[in-house]
Amino acid sequence: MTRGRFITLEGGEGAGKSTQLRALAIALRARGLEVVETREPGGSDGAEAIRSLLLTGAADRWNPRAEALLFAAARSDHIEKTIAPALERGAWVLSDRFLDSSRAYQGMGDLSDADILTLHRIGSDDFAPDRTFFLNLPNGEAERRAHARDGDAADRIGARDPAFHQTVADCFARIAAQEPDRVRRIDASGDRSHVTQRLMEALEDLLP
Amino acid sequence: MTRGRFITLEGGEGAGKSTQLRALAIALRARGLEVVETREPGGSDGAEAIRSLLLTGAADRWNPRAEALLFAAARSDHIEKTIAPALERGAWVLSDRFLDSSRAYQGMGDLSDADILTLHRIGSDDFAPDRTFFLNLPNGEAERRAHARDGDAADRIGARDPAFHQTVADCFARIAAQEPDRVRRIDASGDRSHVTQRLMEALEDLLP
Repeated sequence: MTRGRFITLEGGEGAGKSTQLRALAIALRARGLEVVETREPGGSDGAEAIRSLLLTGAADRWNPRAEALLFAAARSDHIEKTIAPALERGAWVLSDRFLDSSRAYQGMGDLSDADILTLHRIGSDDFAPDRTFFLNLPNGEAERRAHARDGDAADRIGARDPAFHQTVADCFARIAAQEPDRVRRIDASGDRSHVTQRLMEALEDLLP
Repeated sequence: MTRGRFITLEGGEGAGKSTQLRALAIALRARGLEVVETREPGGSDGAEAIRSLLLTGAADRWNPRAEALLFAAARSDHIEKTIAPALERGAWVLSDRFLDSSRAYQGMGDLSDADILTLHRIGSDDFAPDRTFFLNLPNGEAERRAHARDGDAADRIGARDPAFHQTVADCFARIAAQEPDRVRRIDASGDRSHVTQRLMEALEDLLP
């Protein structure tokens, strides 16, 4: 049995990650592949329990260091229980967010990018996706979409400084520049089906 | 206000850590000190929530890497919310287990001692006790006490290889040799009050 492929979707809120993940799963199943759809934080029983700790309670419940450790613990469980076994049996695994989100969201304050990568080495032995897509939207477009979709989420996101969104986007861009083979930036604007088509084209070299 | 002192008690099951911690708290309060008694994993709301994740479910619920990350996350929260604020206001903090337990129990399998120390640097900026006591019992004495005290615990501990107990003891001994100023090995055999007296004597240089 050929090992499957591990594909991650990254990008800010409102970039269309969840929508495109579902569309990509349908397109890959149409090619006869088994596809597992998952997400972070979460994706396994243990990781979902950690997700509950991370997402409930006050926004400042966890200091940034404890938060990064919890994300790394959840990721270790997610890989061990869900991702690695699926790849072993030949399935393709699509994850809505993975390590690069930790690098973009946790690795730019109290912790450095090097610290986040160290936690991933200790927790998951540097386990890496075969391909990562950064869904990229023009400035302001992601915020507009997030507001249109979900008032609560928009409030939470809107409360953050616009400079924060730019820092996250810059971090994704830097990772894409460092690892051009793994990471592809995809234009996420325009018609949904066109975005899915761009993603499938950028997977062509990995397809059986 | 003079900063308080942070004292940790380490040792295998049955060495008398909890009993001695209570006795030490009483003796220090008799000297007019404010004393906070705490424990790991746990000791703060967030860390106790992580403790529940660690101690419930199947024994193999967490892989050793995820487990070490969860311990480090709990420790970061414990220090931030409980230990550091108490020390700041001048209290003495006594903790039943701390970092050295992670080094002895998690840092000798899939993870190295260096990995455990790295997690502590990232999670807690190398926060260290002012003094650590390793309660030391002759071979076989700790197991006998644990059996006498708690059938369930004895079953859990008894199921582990005797070589495991020796490896843990060796690890504590190595740490004590590396850091003679912080770490003191205390003979934990004999009368309880004599053990407490040995602990107080080994704290004399830190007392106000």
